[in-house]
Amino acid sequence: MGCNLAIAGVTGAVGQEFLKILEEREFAFDSLKMLASSRSKGKRIEFKGKSYVVEELTARSFEKIDIALFSAGGARSKEFAPAAVKSGAVVVDNSSAFRMDPEVPLVIPEINPEKIKENKGIIANPNCSTIVGIVPVWPLHKANAVKRMVVSTYQAASGAGQSAMVELEEQSREILSGKEPVCKAFPYQIAFNIFSHNSALGPNGYNEEEMKMVKETQKIFDCPEIAITCTCIRIPVFRAHCESINLEFTASITADEVRDLLSTAPGVSVLDDREHNRFPMPIDATGKDNIFVGRVRQDESVADNRGINIWVAGDQLRKGAALNAVQIAERLL
Amino acid sequence: MGCNLAIAGVTGAVGQEFLKILEEREFAFDSLKMLASSRSKGKRIEFKGKSYVVEELTARSFEKIDIALFSAGGARSKEFAPAAVKSGAVVVDNSSAFRMDPEVPLVIPEINPEKIKENKGIIANPNCSTIVGIVPVWPLHKANAVKRMVVSTYQAASGAGQSAMVELEEQSREILSGKEPVCKAFPYQIAFNIFSHNSALGPNGYNEEEMKMVKETQKIFDCPEIAITCTCIRIPVFRAHCESINLEFTASITADEVRDLLSTAPGVSVLDDREHNRFPMPIDATGKDNIFVGRVRQDESVADNRGINIWVAGDQLRKGAALNAVQIAERLL
Repeated sequence: MGCNLAIAGVTGAVGQEFLKILEEREFAFDSLKMLASSRSKGKRIEFKGKSYVVEELTARSFEKIDIALFSAGGARSKEFAPAAVKSGAVVVDNSSAFRMDPEVPLVIPEINPEKIKENKGIIANPNCSTIVGIVPVWPLHKANAVKRMVVSTYQAASGAGQSAMVELEEQSREILSGKEPVCKAFPYQIAFNIFSHNSALGPNGYNEEEMKMVKETQKIFDCPEIAITCTCIRIPVFRAHCESINLEFTASITADEVRDLLSTAPGVSVLDDREHNRFPMPIDATGKDNIFVGRVRQDESVADNRGINIWVAGDQLRKGAALNAVQIAERLL
Repeated sequence: MGCNLAIAGVTGAVGQEFLKILEEREFAFDSLKMLASSRSKGKRIEFKGKSYVVEELTARSFEKIDIALFSAGGARSKEFAPAAVKSGAVVVDNSSAFRMDPEVPLVIPEINPEKIKENKGIIANPNCSTIVGIVPVWPLHKANAVKRMVVSTYQAASGAGQSAMVELEEQSREILSGKEPVCKAFPYQIAFNIFSHNSALGPNGYNEEEMKMVKETQKIFDCPEIAITCTCIRIPVFRAHCESINLEFTASITADEVRDLLSTAPGVSVLDDREHNRFPMPIDATGKDNIFVGRVRQDESVADNRGINIWVAGDQLRKGAALNAVQIAERLL
C-alpha cells in the first residue's frame, strides 16, 4: 500500500532532509511530486535512482496527492495548504501557520499520536525547539506532572534554513582570514558569536520562538496549566539544538528515577556518563533520530526533591522537523 | 604613591590582560615584576615603553613586593601565595585555591568592597562565570531579596586559557577545510560544537564550575540561604561569557523596575532594545569593562509577579578575571 506524495519546499534544508529520511525509512509511495517556489522550477533532483523535475508550487499542484509534506514557510502554507486539502490531500505542515488552530492537531508521535486521526486535512508539526525539548520531558510528565519548566536554548543555524548554515561557514572563513563578516541570513554575526533568537518580539518581551515553546507544549501535553518560561539563543553550530531544562515536578523525584524513565522512553537516548564527563553535544545528535539526554541532576534549589535539571541535544532538521513530519505521515498510512 | 607590583602568570591569557588593564587605567606602580613558570623564564615583554624580562615564579620572588596579582593556576597559588604573604605582599588571587577559605575575602568591588580591608594577606577573585552573572543580580537582590536563581551559561573558550582560544581557531580552520579537528586543550571538539563544562563532577553530578556559582554567590552576597542551580556549557566563542538567568524574588517586581535598578548599577550596561531585537552578544562585551544586560522580562511562570528573566554578557578575561583583580588592587592602595 503506497500513496501519492508531494513535498512542498523540497529544495530547502528541511525539504532535502525529507528526501533523506523517506529513503532511509523506505517510505512506500506510488508517486512523488517535488514542489518549490518558481525560483527552483525546472531544477532536477535525483532520488532513489530516479530524476525528478521540481515543479512550481501552486493551488493546482495537489491533484491525486494523498499526503503533502509542507516546509515552504508559513506564508506558502497559509496560501496553498487549504488548496491541497480541497484536492483531497492530508497536509503535514512544518510551518507555524496552523499550529495553534484548535481545529488542527499538533503532533509529536511519541507524545500524542492519537490526535493524528482527528485531523480535518491539516496536521501541524511543532517547532523544532519544542520537539527537541519536550520529547524527553513527556515520559517524566506522565509519571509525575511537571508544574514548571525553565528552558534556555542553544539553537543551531539550520533552524533559519540552508542560507543560515552557509552564512555560518562563510562568516567563519571571513573572520579567520581577518575580514569583516557579512550578515545576510541573520541580522547579527553568527560565527564565534551568539544572539537572542531573531524572531519578532511580543508586548511581553518574549520572542515568537520562546512563546512557541510555551503554547505548543501546553497544547501537545494537553495541559494548559503547565508553567513554562523560555530564553531562546542562536549559537554557531550547524544543525543540532541543545537545551538546558529545569523542571519542577508535583511530587518528589530522584535523578535515578528520571534516568530510568528516560531509558525506556521512545525517541530518547540517555547519554549521561558522569564518570567520563561525557554528555550530549550537537555533534552527537547531528544526523541522529533520537533526542539525547544527559546531565540529569537533582536541583537542590527546589524543596522536597521536586527539582531536576536535564540537558538535551537533538538534530533540528531531523526530529526537530523532517523526521517528525515523516513519522506522522507513516502513521497516516 | 605607587607600589611594587608583581604579576604571577604574566604570560597567560589573564596575565596579558592584567598588563592591558594596568596600562589603560594608569595604575601607579614604582616597580613591576613579571613572573611565570620556568618555561617562560627569560622571555621579554614590552610594557609602557619598557622591556621586562620574565622571571621564574619561586617562593623568593616577592621580596619588597606590595601587591602580587596571581593568575598562574590553583596549584601555583597554593604553593607560592603564602610565601608572597610572608614577604609582606598582599596577594589578589585569580585561582579557586582560596576562594572558599573563611579567612579569605572573596571580592567583587561593586558588591562587597568592604571585605577588602579584612584580608589577612590574600584576597580571592571570584570565578569568571560568577562575576559575569552576579554583578547585575546584586542591585536587584539588594532591592528585593532573590530567593532562587536558575542559571544556564554560554561560556567562551578564553576561560580555559590562551591555548583553548587557539584551539577554537585551529579546529575551525580544520573543519572548514574538511579535516578532522584535533582536541588538545579541550577534551571535545569546541569548533561548531558545544559541551558541558569540562571541570570535575562532584557526587551530586554538578561540575566544579556550577558549584562555584552556587557557593561563591552565597559567600559574596553573604546570603547562605539563596538557592541557586546552574548548568555550565562551553560554546565556540573566543572571550565573552553569556548567561541566561531566571530569578525568583521575595516580593513582586516588574521588568521596568529591574531595568531602572540596573540603569544606575555600577559595572552594568543595559542593552535591552526590544524595538530592534538588539540584546547583549559576546561581541558587544568583548574588550569592555561592564557587564551587559538585556532580555529583561517578567517570568509569567512565577506567581505574584515575583519572577524575572535576564540575559547577560561579560568579557571573561576582563571583568571575569583581570579587571576585577586590578579593581581590588586599586582599592588596596
